[in-house]
Amino acid sequence: MSHKLMQMQRAETGPPPVRPIMLGIAGDSAAGKTTLTGGLVRALGAERSTSLCVDDYHRYDREERASLPFTPLHPDCNYVEIMEQHLQLLATGKPVLKPVYDHSNGTLTRPVLLEPREFVIVEGLLPLYTKLARACFDVTVFLAPPEDIRTRWKITRDTTKRGYTEEKVRAEMQRREPESERFIRSQRSNADIVIVFSPIEGRDDPPDTPLSATILLRPTIPHPPLAEILAETPSKAMHVKLMRDLDGSPVDALHIHGYAPTEQSTAVANAIWERLPVDEPLPDGLGRLAEGERNEPLRLAQLILLYHLMGGA
Amino acid sequence: MSHKLMQMQRAETGPPPVRPIMLGIAGDSAAGKTTLTGGLVRALGAERSTSLCVDDYHRYDREERASLPFTPLHPDCNYVEIMEQHLQLLATGKPVLKPVYDHSNGTLTRPVLLEPREFVIVEGLLPLYTKLARACFDVTVFLAPPEDIRTRWKITRDTTKRGYTEEKVRAEMQRREPESERFIRSQRSNADIVIVFSPIEGRDDPPDTPLSATILLRPTIPHPPLAEILAETPSKAMHVKLMRDLDGSPVDALHIHGYAPTEQSTAVANAIWERLPVDEPLPDGLGRLAEGERNEPLRLAQLILLYHLMGGA
Repeated sequence: MSHKLMQMQRAETGPPPVRPIMLGIAGDSAAGKTTLTGGLVRALGAERSTSLCVDDYHRYDREERASLPFTPLHPDCNYVEIMEQHLQLLATGKPVLKPVYDHSNGTLTRPVLLEPREFVIVEGLLPLYTKLARACFDVTVFLAPPEDIRTRWKITRDTTKRGYTEEKVRAEMQRREPESERFIRSQRSNADIVIVFSPIEGRDDPPDTPLSATILLRPTIPHPPLAEILAETPSKAMHVKLMRDLDGSPVDALHIHGYAPTEQSTAVANAIWERLPVDEPLPDGLGRLAEGERNEPLRLAQLILLYHLMGGA
Repeated sequence: MSHKLMQMQRAETGPPPVRPIMLGIAGDSAAGKTTLTGGLVRALGAERSTSLCVDDYHRYDREERASLPFTPLHPDCNYVEIMEQHLQLLATGKPVLKPVYDHSNGTLTRPVLLEPREFVIVEGLLPLYTKLARACFDVTVFLAPPEDIRTRWKITRDTTKRGYTEEKVRAEMQRREPESERFIRSQRSNADIVIVFSPIEGRDDPPDTPLSATILLRPTIPHPPLAEILAETPSKAMHVKLMRDLDGSPVDALHIHGYAPTEQSTAVANAIWERLPVDEPLPDGLGRLAEGERNEPLRLAQLILLYHLMGGA
């Protein structure tokens, strides 16, 4: 250790910071990251949890990007090294002065102080891109809706909230496709959990059937005892199947059926919730979609993540 | 060490960063910090050195401060903890995303990437305010011109560059006085070197005589061998005297005479420069004032700092 490092360590005051539990959620634009995160923060409470979006680490604003050969998905378009640094600081319980990218007008603005809480949820395009960033997380998630569903979600959001036309959104998605594949979808292999919201293949459900979800659980971390939970709550709400992910790695695929009766998925939800070290009843804020509707597979996905965050057993 | 700290350390890539030599220059508003720093950066070269102003760590913009009970001098008006964090990162060779306060209009704007170089010069109102910040520096300086001279400098700058009237500047200085004393001038005791630009007391020099300087050298770090240098270059340019600083601590007071002939102070300048591990001749950018004039005591002060930065012997 250098003398200056020693000086700095001796000059630290106050109690050693508490190390938060960190969850990283990666996924392409409009993959559902904010919706997933929102329910978790509501369930954990704003006093105990904080969330941040690492797209704030964009290196260029919208105007500067217009003359650059890459899209915001490219690591060179982001302060990846600073993102890693801030994730390390948060993971060791230290505050950061986080940059701010204003999605409404595409400008970089005044940074904000972010103090870690007991739970820190980090979402964005590239949170799992580097080994050092991944080392900061206790649990990692990749959101992977099929492209046709993500396109629908992105058009809805970007035309209503970000001032784009449908034509522009489609053109931009096409322009981003090579970088989506190379930098965003490649993070899927590094996630402990992959969540795919999508209708069940081969079923002919009526058009307003809630979306189902497939949750792939990699044996990189210990997951909730699903076989045990399924045995307790025999239902149509979900089933588990051993399979291989796209990269060939073995996973447990948990299929959660959007068409199942709410009582049945609520029974499963309660069975997971009971395994968490809490006394309160199942929180109300789970499973909420942007428009205020609810989705049972989203609720179960959030409960599995809460199990990991809160230390279920 | 926690398992996550271990994970992070293992995930670090690339060679270990080089630790820069760090100089901290504290002083009140318009005390001459930027002028002193400018000559050092010119002498060291922009490739080898970088400077930053910690007033960029202001927590509130000018508009927000209008309704707050303290001035920008108050630590609570600054992200002191983030300043400490960034100084630690720079001192250990890491880049930071530095906030930016725009003095021209009093707003906080988009942060900038700052990568440490071989020499990092940090100036501002509060760089020596905390023990942890001080632990990051190899050399520390406090600039302490007499208040009447600082008032003149501040009026000149703030009326020409920051859009204030003389009346407003004087009113603001009065409002700041208690915080100047409590937070700014208190840093003087923690500096290795105190620099006071001021006419020599008791002399009746013509009004355009260049300002003299008194440089107080605390025995907290080893200083250039001034007795030896003075013996080599018998001149009117300077003399050394043992005395006590305002806080009673023993110091060597180096009096540099603004009225001395330039040849004589140049001889002293060369005698210091020859003790530095460089082959080039004495650099031209030293001693330059804001208006393009030159001041020999400023040049000698900068040379003493270069001696500390470059490792003179």
